[in-house]
Amino acid sequence: MSQKIKLQTEAYKGVRDFYPEDMAVENYIFKTMRRVAESFGYEEYGASVLEPAELYEAKTGEEIVSEQTYTFTDRGGRRVTLRPEMTPTVARMIAARRRELPLPIRWYSIPNLFRYERPQRGRLREHWQLNCDIFGVTGIEAEAEIISLAAELLRAFGLKDEDFEIRLNSRKIMDYCISGVLGLQGDDGKTICRLIDKKNKISDEEFKKTAADILGEKDKLLLALLNSKNFEEFISRLPRDEEAEKTLNETKGLIKVLDGLGIYNIRFDQTIMRGFDYYTGTVFEIYDTDAKNRRSLFGGGRFDKLLSIFGAPDLPAVGFGMGDVTMRDILETRGLLPPYRPPAKVVVCIVEKSALPYGNDLTQKLRAEGVAVLIDCSGRKVGDQIKAADKRGIPFVVCVGGAEVKSGKLKVKELKTGEETEVEEGQLARLLKNRAVK
Amino acid sequence: MSQKIKLQTEAYKGVRDFYPEDMAVENYIFKTMRRVAESFGYEEYGASVLEPAELYEAKTGEEIVSEQTYTFTDRGGRRVTLRPEMTPTVARMIAARRRELPLPIRWYSIPNLFRYERPQRGRLREHWQLNCDIFGVTGIEAEAEIISLAAELLRAFGLKDEDFEIRLNSRKIMDYCISGVLGLQGDDGKTICRLIDKKNKISDEEFKKTAADILGEKDKLLLALLNSKNFEEFISRLPRDEEAEKTLNETKGLIKVLDGLGIYNIRFDQTIMRGFDYYTGTVFEIYDTDAKNRRSLFGGGRFDKLLSIFGAPDLPAVGFGMGDVTMRDILETRGLLPPYRPPAKVVVCIVEKSALPYGNDLTQKLRAEGVAVLIDCSGRKVGDQIKAADKRGIPFVVCVGGAEVKSGKLKVKELKTGEETEVEEGQLARLLKNRAVK
Repeated sequence: MSQKIKLQTEAYKGVRDFYPEDMAVENYIFKTMRRVAESFGYEEYGASVLEPAELYEAKTGEEIVSEQTYTFTDRGGRRVTLRPEMTPTVARMIAARRRELPLPIRWYSIPNLFRYERPQRGRLREHWQLNCDIFGVTGIEAEAEIISLAAELLRAFGLKDEDFEIRLNSRKIMDYCISGVLGLQGDDGKTICRLIDKKNKISDEEFKKTAADILGEKDKLLLALLNSKNFEEFISRLPRDEEAEKTLNETKGLIKVLDGLGIYNIRFDQTIMRGFDYYTGTVFEIYDTDAKNRRSLFGGGRFDKLLSIFGAPDLPAVGFGMGDVTMRDILETRGLLPPYRPPAKVVVCIVEKSALPYGNDLTQKLRAEGVAVLIDCSGRKVGDQIKAADKRGIPFVVCVGGAEVKSGKLKVKELKTGEETEVEEGQLARLLKNRAVK
Repeated sequence: MSQKIKLQTEAYKGVRDFYPEDMAVENYIFKTMRRVAESFGYEEYGASVLEPAELYEAKTGEEIVSEQTYTFTDRGGRRVTLRPEMTPTVARMIAARRRELPLPIRWYSIPNLFRYERPQRGRLREHWQLNCDIFGVTGIEAEAEIISLAAELLRAFGLKDEDFEIRLNSRKIMDYCISGVLGLQGDDGKTICRLIDKKNKISDEEFKKTAADILGEKDKLLLALLNSKNFEEFISRLPRDEEAEKTLNETKGLIKVLDGLGIYNIRFDQTIMRGFDYYTGTVFEIYDTDAKNRRSLFGGGRFDKLLSIFGAPDLPAVGFGMGDVTMRDILETRGLLPPYRPPAKVVVCIVEKSALPYGNDLTQKLRAEGVAVLIDCSGRKVGDQIKAADKRGIPFVVCVGGAEVKSGKLKVKELKTGEETEVEEGQLARLLKNRAVK
């Protein structure tokens, strides 16, 4: 070793190491996500975390492109970005095979995403996010399916319907407010869009100042619209044309369909905007209803125009993204995470060295029958071997010495209860597979 | 859309997009890896693909650090690397919790790894790699377990023992050859180490030239050692001291233990070196025995000193890494990959619009009972709905119209055979779950 400097053992800033206990939580979350997405017939896809930087310079929220991405130049002079979101990637992949893929396309993925930002609770530099999207459906059946899938996911994690609320809005309605009612176009419109999106994160003063700068006298109308007590009051303040009426009816129809699907914890909310520029219709966000911690858990919406950035014909699309950090946090808070269990169900302890070949053989037989097992070849006292198994949380031990080798009769000990069961060697796998762990 | 430039739909150079059929192959490979690793009691861990660049400047093969990593500076001035291998990460994580973790530690992970190199068959810029490591065992039981795990993995993928060969060597023996026998120290020793490692990839002339430059007259001895027909001939050429004798016996003992575990397709090979500098003892590589394509599939070895780069006490360790690209390639070549099946087992086809609420209800009931199902709300002709299901490879359809709503009797049609079965609605889930797909 010619090592002079001692290396640090910390992970890179803002990312996580997953020790087995942490990894088991991630795996539980991912497994539940996969199971529910697949129960809706969604197929898993994937891609590299590296994407050409151009992909994000086209049509995402400005803040992200300018300040929040990890973008660098590779040794061959290509500008490359660690993906900050999955939607541009899925749009790219679908655009590439637009003609071959039968519609509708129902896809999901659980990518890791990177953002360069100051790490804080629930906002790390890297997180994983379930993305579910349906492509090729114009009608609200697509929204209905995506929103039921989102609700079903939360139920699968053990949340009750009263634990969350789905808040719904339509970008079309908001576009009508901003251009039709407030008379804003282009950049001014976008600025107001983002201002509404940030409303709950900034102070009233800051909001009013920016609104007044752009809207002048009309800032009061915007505030009246946003502060309406409910959706009925909100739309009562809107002068409506035929197009606006149609959009409103579409959203009302969606609520009705969801009602038919047994989803009642849903309401209109005219302050829901979603950050990204690419949304073109329905947007939704799911809120934790806990009075102590009312927060957005995740959201999504309709983006019918994203394929055009690749020169492909438009394809209607609805989707959402659900992050692992937020989910882990809410499940932890509510005590809904399963306890950690190591994979091995049993340790084969070797009482005397001469029993090792028999122990090895037994271990291999158990594995072949689908029992996860490890063997303790340390040579330490058998009592210490049992203690070590217990410390790791492995539920059973089988001790193998001269007597066992001779008789082929084995004693299985359950460490939590101390209960011992004697079995013939040939029955051991069956016993271990069927025995529930207390 | 104010889009002017049409974006490309290609992925970044040298990485892969995983469309559902490709993702299913990856998932099959990962699932098999997980199952086998866990059957040996190995626990899964994980970490971010981003690591501080210093981690790779300490003790990996020089080529990688200098030319082959993706290293960049983040917006906060930190130098960061996309991990090119997992071993430094696992060593870092274990060093950080050295005192809390009970020994031995058996861990696995399936990280993605990046190398900046010219993409070519089997050598992409990003690949996934199963890493299995055991920490805390000094004796050859560790090597025996790791090598059996490697062999068991190949068997689980459907390879037969005659399809692969495990080639074994010891860095201690090679160090003895290089310093004790050839008298090389420091950089010259390392250069010869790497030259041996590259022997099968470069021409004989190139090998001989470099060997002669460093060794002068002694180059013939090196060639004689490496070209020995078998291990017995190789060691017969070595003047042996007590230490060398001990090392040789250790390796012989390992072969004997593996023999006891039913692993016979193993042999010594003095040309196996493994690229990384951190190996300290046994090294092994597993070769495809196919005469048309004799190649290294993957390998590993013992690295007892890696924790010292973090200032932690040394911890003996043995491990290997198995890449997804090579595995996919060999499984494809041998026809061992399972065919693609979409997740949905059945499509609920809607014959007339009035049956939609019933269809939605049926869909939800099936999902609640664990049947993956999708519903066709397209409104197209039922014949086209069935054709679409068939095109996607979904095995069953259930058509729902007025008659079904009224009677609650449903017809399940298997698309491949055309076979129809009538069942009560309440029996449908059970039928679909138990019915094997032809």
